[in-house]
Amino acid sequence: MARPAVARDRSASRRANLSLVLRLLRDEGPRSRARIAEETGLPKATVSHLTAELLEGGLVREGAAERDRGAVGRPGQAVEVDGRQVHGLGAEVNVDYVSVLALNLRGEVAFEHSVPLDVRALTPGAVLDVVARLAEQGTDAVRAGGGRVVGLTLATPGAVDMAAGVVKYASNIGWHEVRALTELRRRLGPGTPELHLENDAKLGALAEYVLASADNVRDLVFVSGQTGVGVGIIAGGHLVRGTGGYAGEVGHLRLVPSDEPCACGRRGCWETTVGRDALLRYAADPGDPVFDPMTDLGQRLAVLRERAGAGDPRTLAALDRIAAHLAPGLALLADILNPRLLVLGGHFAFFGEYLIEQVTRQVHELTMAPDAGGGEIVLSQLGLTGTARGAALLALDAVYQDPTAVMAGGA
Amino acid sequence: MARPAVARDRSASRRANLSLVLRLLRDEGPRSRARIAEETGLPKATVSHLTAELLEGGLVREGAAERDRGAVGRPGQAVEVDGRQVHGLGAEVNVDYVSVLALNLRGEVAFEHSVPLDVRALTPGAVLDVVARLAEQGTDAVRAGGGRVVGLTLATPGAVDMAAGVVKYASNIGWHEVRALTELRRRLGPGTPELHLENDAKLGALAEYVLASADNVRDLVFVSGQTGVGVGIIAGGHLVRGTGGYAGEVGHLRLVPSDEPCACGRRGCWETTVGRDALLRYAADPGDPVFDPMTDLGQRLAVLRERAGAGDPRTLAALDRIAAHLAPGLALLADILNPRLLVLGGHFAFFGEYLIEQVTRQVHELTMAPDAGGGEIVLSQLGLTGTARGAALLALDAVYQDPTAVMAGGA
Repeated sequence: MARPAVARDRSASRRANLSLVLRLLRDEGPRSRARIAEETGLPKATVSHLTAELLEGGLVREGAAERDRGAVGRPGQAVEVDGRQVHGLGAEVNVDYVSVLALNLRGEVAFEHSVPLDVRALTPGAVLDVVARLAEQGTDAVRAGGGRVVGLTLATPGAVDMAAGVVKYASNIGWHEVRALTELRRRLGPGTPELHLENDAKLGALAEYVLASADNVRDLVFVSGQTGVGVGIIAGGHLVRGTGGYAGEVGHLRLVPSDEPCACGRRGCWETTVGRDALLRYAADPGDPVFDPMTDLGQRLAVLRERAGAGDPRTLAALDRIAAHLAPGLALLADILNPRLLVLGGHFAFFGEYLIEQVTRQVHELTMAPDAGGGEIVLSQLGLTGTARGAALLALDAVYQDPTAVMAGGA
Repeated sequence: MARPAVARDRSASRRANLSLVLRLLRDEGPRSRARIAEETGLPKATVSHLTAELLEGGLVREGAAERDRGAVGRPGQAVEVDGRQVHGLGAEVNVDYVSVLALNLRGEVAFEHSVPLDVRALTPGAVLDVVARLAEQGTDAVRAGGGRVVGLTLATPGAVDMAAGVVKYASNIGWHEVRALTELRRRLGPGTPELHLENDAKLGALAEYVLASADNVRDLVFVSGQTGVGVGIIAGGHLVRGTGGYAGEVGHLRLVPSDEPCACGRRGCWETTVGRDALLRYAADPGDPVFDPMTDLGQRLAVLRERAGAGDPRTLAALDRIAAHLAPGLALLADILNPRLLVLGGHFAFFGEYLIEQVTRQVHELTMAPDAGGGEIVLSQLGLTGTARGAALLALDAVYQDPTAVMAGGA
């Protein structure tokens, strides 16, 4: 029932065909021009012309000779995605840090840097100053390696208006109607690459999907574990955004009986029972060093993990409580979306070894058809950089959708 | 991040191109061969060849002359989808009835018939006997009009294995591991068209989406109101099936405090609080004629609607209770999926005038960002035939995906 992507004019048709060839090479690997023609249905002469353009634009390169399947003799020269010099930047703003990561078209990380920051205590402008500075450092690092940056995606929690570049409402960082991309463009000045804005959990889901799709996973739900808890949904290989871009905002559902006040102004939201503040609250009394705002959050969480490793009953009980409150939400998502994987990120992954067994058991008990396929709970392997990686991937995806935007000669 | 549809060989590439042209004509309307070439990026000679094949196969026809946009003089002959003779059958099995509908490629209904049936009291084989008889009547009606049936989709409640053609688990009709398509094929005998199986709420969602997409709706949630309550999700124009095909099975979630026993063997499932049996239970005492199993269910519901129209307090209180229990589920779906529309079907639509105001108000109160875009609650206009219509559409979609399957000369 999906509409076909139909080009509107000749240059659009050229763009669409360049995109088709580049995506084929990304998804299916190196192959000869003859095989590209066969698999895309494009005439051989057209494919020759398109690959020549992509070669000249530095997006593909000649690879090893490939013997055409079934053909006798006559091995063809394979073409493969290159783009070592083409980079996307991903920038993440979260409650306690800002981070920037640069990724090239081959998926290699060229730059990665995180700065602890008490984002709630700063104005959006001051936070975007830090983002801009990190983005400039990332751009410099990419340039020093002979590369260039073709796009930057800013990731924030909460509800964002992608098209307008506005963070509509992100209660955990206190942003409301922040014109983030306009502000960022002003700070980056001339030569600013194409800017995008997207919700952090959706980008985390994209990063997980790119990894999992190698195992033919097409349906997954990523549950971010930050101060807030957001969800990114991939269904049938497509990111579910929702009509206003707010799909997956489950942190503020009431899923577990609770009366805890939430940053959103209401009480009992799910994230007040499973978010990072809940974990600290369950695990320690006020005055405990894990609450010390002068200590980097990663270090504070590491203290908790040490305590858990040493068998501290209070810490283990806190983690059990997180697991008990996490399970009903995961079961709900499993029943509604029937994903192949439920991927836990953030502190859920950091403390995963203490959570996953109980969570898996409880979700199995709570879901309607636990043995009907899917719903496997796994821990993210991407750590804190998953969201920034997803952001960089989104910036690079623009290249796959329209290769002409970064090629000499333009559209 | 979606994989491109890539053809594997020459005949696959021909199929893909025929499909591309046919879908373009369906989605964008009649146009000249020159414009098709321009918009698809295919060479003009290829487009001429493809349209000639589609003409010969009876899937398109010559339309009115179309003046090429921007061109001086030289109007081109437009091509448009024909397929008046190409029909899909949709067959629905539900708790109280079996129905069959035939739809042609232009969206015209050629046959429609429903039979009241106490499906729970019969074996699956006896029910499929009725389905086969109705399907044969539908096929005869199509043939009498000079048409042919190219596919049939069977719609049932519950969890289905689409690929295997097996109804895994449909508690409301008592089916468990029923090899429905094999059984149906045996009953239909030689000349059986291509058979498909899909969950009823998903097909209801498809039928609603085809209507709503005319208004550029790309995200909707359809909530079926039958004895059971299932949900069909369209996200970004794609049906969300889930990895095992069980997405949308929300009828058995515990969303409202209740201890009512459910057909699934558990207690307090959502559908026991908002399903059709709940409505009858709230509205009448045992012995009331609305429980009379010898009376057609439609007539019994009409009795209730008359009572509501006459201001009967018991009936109105029952409908208020349905609304109160419906709202939390709709709010949850709105927060997780952020659909543009929440479409209410079945008895929710039948009693819609008594429900929609209260439901809309409560969902507005319960959702996180009620004014953030989307979440409009509307009543299905398709009545009881929505699911069968969606089933017929799915059967016809196979033609759009592979036109060669129904064309002379085949694949």
